[in-house]
Amino acid sequence: MIKVRLFEDKDWPAVWHIVEPVFRAGETYAFSRDISEEDAYKAWVSIPKATYVAVDQDDVILGTYYIKPNQPGQGDHICNCGYIVAESARGRGIASAMCEQSQRQAIAQGFRAMQYNLVVSTNSGAVRLWKKLGFAVVGTIPEAFRHPTHGYVDAFVMYKRLTGESLP
Amino acid sequence: MIKVRLFEDKDWPAVWHIVEPVFRAGETYAFSRDISEEDAYKAWVSIPKATYVAVDQDDVILGTYYIKPNQPGQGDHICNCGYIVAESARGRGIASAMCEQSQRQAIAQGFRAMQYNLVVSTNSGAVRLWKKLGFAVVGTIPEAFRHPTHGYVDAFVMYKRLTGESLP
Repeated sequence: MIKVRLFEDKDWPAVWHIVEPVFRAGETYAFSRDISEEDAYKAWVSIPKATYVAVDQDDVILGTYYIKPNQPGQGDHICNCGYIVAESARGRGIASAMCEQSQRQAIAQGFRAMQYNLVVSTNSGAVRLWKKLGFAVVGTIPEAFRHPTHGYVDAFVMYKRLTGESLP
Repeated sequence: MIKVRLFEDKDWPAVWHIVEPVFRAGETYAFSRDISEEDAYKAWVSIPKATYVAVDQDDVILGTYYIKPNQPGQGDHICNCGYIVAESARGRGIASAMCEQSQRQAIAQGFRAMQYNLVVSTNSGAVRLWKKLGFAVVGTIPEAFRHPTHGYVDAFVMYKRLTGESLP
């Protein structure tokens, strides 16, 4: 059983343990590969509007996501989220669970749509999952991501309009 | 004669005088319409990598732009710029001059491409100008911008690969 709940500050060491290897690998997120723990906290917790964790029945943290307006002012009705699942917990539907919960949260918070700005084209598992969950590719940015092994690769802008009916 | 030079702190009152009405109007930029002068300075000067001003022969400021990496880390080889021309100076080629100079600056600073994330679709003058200067629409975000008179309107992601040869 996976539950998604609000992040609390005591969760940070576990969250950092999950997100650090993903940032260091530099294959899916455009954070600096040598980002400090302090800057990672800022990016994942302080700047976003809210941060969540996916936990098992023993409250062990298996994944995390943030939600924030994708733009300020006249663009703040579309939200942006980022999701990371612990390496040891992949393939268990945790990304799906977090994405679905984030859509419900987004609607509750008054957002009209969700946008991912930089889905790395080589991250085919993510692209497939977001499509399955109702996102469409609305843009392709040529060579937007410097992949450590594949070099410059395209990135997708993905988008989903949010309404109560479209939720899984 | 229009010259584009680096912003200096003494230029801020003139720059604020130019950008404030554009932010307040809320028709082209996704900054909060009631943004404070302090936050505007942060967004236009502190956060960007550099800020420039377009001046006439008497060093009167007629326009301004900023340049910054569009993403951190593995995405920091694409830059983002924002341009604003003084209302009283429109139609004199100042936006073109700034855009062309920004492309040269971007190349000098090592960027490989330039990306605009939110070109408001109703801002047809800008869309036409960026196309003329070599930018392509690589994405369309449905209803990404809340226009004060047109309501929710689409926004374009525009992109140009930068090479020495492609410059005007």
